[in-house]
Amino acid sequence: MGRWEPGASGRLREAALALYLERGFEQTMVADIAERAGVTARTFFRHFADKREVLFEASADLEKSALAALADAPAPASAMDLVSAALDAAAEVVGTDRELARKRHAVIMANTDLRERELIKLAHLSAALADGLRLRGIDDTEASLAAETGIAVYRVAFERWADDTGGLDLSEAIRMSLATLRTLTASA
Amino acid sequence: MGRWEPGASGRLREAALALYLERGFEQTMVADIAERAGVTARTFFRHFADKREVLFEASADLEKSALAALADAPAPASAMDLVSAALDAAAEVVGTDRELARKRHAVIMANTDLRERELIKLAHLSAALADGLRLRGIDDTEASLAAETGIAVYRVAFERWADDTGGLDLSEAIRMSLATLRTLTASA
Repeated sequence: MGRWEPGASGRLREAALALYLERGFEQTMVADIAERAGVTARTFFRHFADKREVLFEASADLEKSALAALADAPAPASAMDLVSAALDAAAEVVGTDRELARKRHAVIMANTDLRERELIKLAHLSAALADGLRLRGIDDTEASLAAETGIAVYRVAFERWADDTGGLDLSEAIRMSLATLRTLTASA
Repeated sequence: MGRWEPGASGRLREAALALYLERGFEQTMVADIAERAGVTARTFFRHFADKREVLFEASADLEKSALAALADAPAPASAMDLVSAALDAAAEVVGTDRELARKRHAVIMANTDLRERELIKLAHLSAALADGLRLRGIDDTEASLAAETGIAVYRVAFERWADDTGGLDLSEAIRMSLATLRTLTASA
């Protein structure tokens, strides 16, 4: 999820999300998005490879920020400290605009292909986090488990944040999910 | 992963896995599988809807066993106790034949579409486990988190078990992963 930008790219993103929610993702054409944003289809394609890209453009940024935070976290750090640092960085990318994140999430949940795409992106992020943890000296199995668990924590936190009607912010929701996980596993 | 059965179905499964590993999944035709198993293509289709079904036939069984174990676990049980019961039941379905499980896993990992299919099956299982936990009175967020975490534990345990060259069994690997998770989160 990118930060809101004025100009064509932001207008296209807003128009696309509105149309996906109104008509469904499949039923929306690039021409419709461009028209709603008041630009040409050619301009759309200068900003996005296709209509799916509008939804996933920020995934690479999110991954880059999360991995950089993991690599830069001060030592000594436990596996879960490193994962927390990565998730906090992800929260900074995603958490700035809850309305945008909610709309994107609603569009994705309503479409099987998009849900699958999102799962694949998260699996990719999990594998990248595990690699990053190994580079920080975390044992192989612990790295996989911490990364997978981190993604689980993130997903649950995201839902809580997206459903929240108060002032909860995403990094706070992540801390709450981590605390819940600690309680859950302590009693196992 | 089904138990080994003598007869056409077992021979077809063995032939299919061997061919997928030798030639690749895409390059293997149903006719090749039937020929290797010494039956007709018609017989293949009496047992499996298509060549992908050979790999995923047991997913429904696994989910059914896991959910039944979760529903039947004696009270009082914490969320992670219930997830453990579900994972133990899954281990009983998958864990009986490591060689078969290894081959299936190698075939799936070598093919993008199959990897995606497996991710989707696991996401489905996670959602079903979370629903089962809610039916057992577990709070909504805890249910999601425990289910997602359970799938993470299972995935890591499966890899450890599949890579093991000694006598580790899958339910033991699951217990080890749960213990690792407890240590990881306690230090967070």
